[in-house]
Amino acid sequence: MDIKSPLSVSQPTVRRLPLYLRILKQAEDAGKENISSTYIAKELKLESIQVRKDLASMGITGQPGIGFTVKSLIRAIEHFLGWDNPTDAFVVGAGNLGAALAGYEGFGEYNLNIIAAFDIDPAKVGSEISGKKVFHIAKLAEHIQRMHIKIAILTLPSAAAQQITNIMVEAGIKAIWNFTSLKLNVPEDVFVERIDLAASLAVLSNKISIDSEKVSK
Amino acid sequence: MDIKSPLSVSQPTVRRLPLYLRILKQAEDAGKENISSTYIAKELKLESIQVRKDLASMGITGQPGIGFTVKSLIRAIEHFLGWDNPTDAFVVGAGNLGAALAGYEGFGEYNLNIIAAFDIDPAKVGSEISGKKVFHIAKLAEHIQRMHIKIAILTLPSAAAQQITNIMVEAGIKAIWNFTSLKLNVPEDVFVERIDLAASLAVLSNKISIDSEKVSK
Repeated sequence: MDIKSPLSVSQPTVRRLPLYLRILKQAEDAGKENISSTYIAKELKLESIQVRKDLASMGITGQPGIGFTVKSLIRAIEHFLGWDNPTDAFVVGAGNLGAALAGYEGFGEYNLNIIAAFDIDPAKVGSEISGKKVFHIAKLAEHIQRMHIKIAILTLPSAAAQQITNIMVEAGIKAIWNFTSLKLNVPEDVFVERIDLAASLAVLSNKISIDSEKVSK
Repeated sequence: MDIKSPLSVSQPTVRRLPLYLRILKQAEDAGKENISSTYIAKELKLESIQVRKDLASMGITGQPGIGFTVKSLIRAIEHFLGWDNPTDAFVVGAGNLGAALAGYEGFGEYNLNIIAAFDIDPAKVGSEISGKKVFHIAKLAEHIQRMHIKIAILTLPSAAAQQITNIMVEAGIKAIWNFTSLKLNVPEDVFVERIDLAASLAVLSNKISIDSEKVSK
C-alpha cells in the first residue's frame, strides 16, 4: 500500500487509528485474511463511512466485496504512526505517576521504549522505578542530546514543569506528553499532547455531585 | 457565596476549575486575601474574560477593584466539584496502570479515596497494590452495593471492559473513569470519562514521524 504523508491526516483520524489496529490484530489472531469497514465500524460502534473516510485520508482504499487485507492494513497503520520502528522516550518526574508510566507494559505494543527516568529527589536518583534507572534531572539535557531522544513524558509537579520544558526543548525534545496540569509554552515545532487527570476527575466528580443533588431534591 | 446548580455549567468550564483551584491555593499559601481574574488568567495563559465568564456561570462574581476573596473562591469551587467531601472509588484492573492510579497521591488533593482494587488474576487477588487490597472481580458487585461506591476507575484489558461495566452499572456505579481503549455502552444516567493513552500516544508518534519525514526530504 502506498500511503499518504502524515501531514494530510486530521488529528481525530489519527486518534482512531489505534482502535482500528486493535480490531485488526484481533482479526489477525483469529486467522482472518480480509476485513470490511463495516465489521471494523460495528466492533467500535462507529459509522462505516467514518472508517472508510479515515483510511481513505491515509490513501488506503478497500476492494469492493472483499474489503481490506488484514496484514497489510496493520502494516500500513503501524508505519503511518511510526510504530513499526522503536521510539525511545524519557520519563521526567519519578513520582507515582512517572513510575506507573515507566512500567506500563502497554507501551511496548506501540514500540515506545521508556529507557530512563529523571528526578530531583536525592532519595530517588540512582534507584530504579519499574526497572528504569532514575538519573538526576541536572543530567537531562546531556542525556537527551547524547541519545537523540525526541519524546518526553512529563510527570513533574506543575511548579517545575515550564522550566524543565525549556531545558528539554533546548536539548532537542520534539514531543512532550504532558501529564502536569500546566499549559506549556513551547516553540511551534514542538508538539505537546496533554493528559489532565485533574480536569478529567473534575468532570466525573461534578457529575456525581449533580446526581446527589437530584436525589436530595 | 451562593453558587448555581452544577447542571448549568459547561464541561469545558468544569475542566478549567482545577486550574483555577491550583492558582488560588498558591495565592492562599502566599498569604494573599484577594485575587483578580486578570491575575488568574495571566498565570494560566488564558483570557481574563474567560475566567470571569467561567466563574459567573457558577454564580460567582468578583468585586470591582478588589476581585475575588481567595478563601471563599476556593471553598465555592471545591464545593461545586464535590471535592469538599471525600468520594470513594474502586480501581478495577490491578495491572500496572491500576497500581499507578491506586497509589497516585495527587487524588488525595481532590478528596478522591481509592479504597480497593479488583482483578481476576489469582496471583494478585489477596495481595496489595500501592497499599490497597486487591479483591477478586467476582466480589465487585457485592462491594459496590455494600459500600455505596459511585465511581470506578477502569483499567482492565479492553476485551473484558464491557462485560464488567455492565456488572458495575447494575450494582450502582454512576461514573466510570475509562482508561481502556473501548468505547463503553452505558445507560444515560451513567457518565463515562475516557482517557485513551493509545490515542494520545498515536498523535505524539505521528508528529515525530512527520518530523523525521521532513528531515529526510
